[in-house]
Amino acid sequence: MRQKLNIVTLGVNDLSKSVAFYEDSLKWKRSDASTENIVFFNLGGIVLALYPKDKLVEDVTLKFNMEGTSPITLAYNAKTEQEVDDLLFEVKNLGAEIIKPAQKVFWGGYSGYFKDLDGNLFEVAFNPFVTFDENDNLMI
Amino acid sequence: MRQKLNIVTLGVNDLSKSVAFYEDSLKWKRSDASTENIVFFNLGGIVLALYPKDKLVEDVTLKFNMEGTSPITLAYNAKTEQEVDDLLFEVKNLGAEIIKPAQKVFWGGYSGYFKDLDGNLFEVAFNPFVTFDENDNLMI
Repeated sequence: MRQKLNIVTLGVNDLSKSVAFYEDSLKWKRSDASTENIVFFNLGGIVLALYPKDKLVEDVTLKFNMEGTSPITLAYNAKTEQEVDDLLFEVKNLGAEIIKPAQKVFWGGYSGYFKDLDGNLFEVAFNPFVTFDENDNLMI
Repeated sequence: MRQKLNIVTLGVNDLSKSVAFYEDSLKWKRSDASTENIVFFNLGGIVLALYPKDKLVEDVTLKFNMEGTSPITLAYNAKTEQEVDDLLFEVKNLGAEIIKPAQKVFWGGYSGYFKDLDGNLFEVAFNPFVTFDENDNLMI
């Protein structure tokens, strides 16, 4: 696993309201890769994604405690489907818990989730629609 | 607020055990800025920090639900103490909740926390011991 994370995803209660906070209030510029379902802000080295909490919980296939803070996931973008498989196999052997085995997902990619020793959620995904710069940052 | 986040901090149950997962298992290289109390991994654009959960909860001055996942905080490094004050004043006016007013903190910096509309925890900190590269990334 390269020493890299590509996306921090915040699960939000009301996407348009949350987007307005970052976009209208903080004056951050959304990425053109954003859709009506997910909004990206390229922070120069990592991408912040806002995604509805219920969809995120569904995507992770994990029941979340809806009280308190929202779920956050940390994503690592692999460069092939094989790398996703290899990496999940590797971290499982290292003691991480596989939450969602790698599988084709609705947005056209191939993705799985693991939990680290403290319960933090890591997605490992191959996304055929993105490219990387020379520092392995997503160009979105 | 510049369109930037500098640090993702994971609250961990057992620092040495969690560090071993990233360092020994994933073969990530810790930053020389790490201490016995906090460990940094520079991911090229953002820094991943591992910090004991109880200390993180104490630092945020927020009681966390200890069940389920661990706390995660997202940090923005300001370049002056004044910028910390200005930014917290600004986000408060924008509807964010100030969790910890800006104050001198034990590690020698000046820091406060706010919660966004969904309860995500953002630290705004001035750290006199760090420098930035030309892309506002921390050089640690």
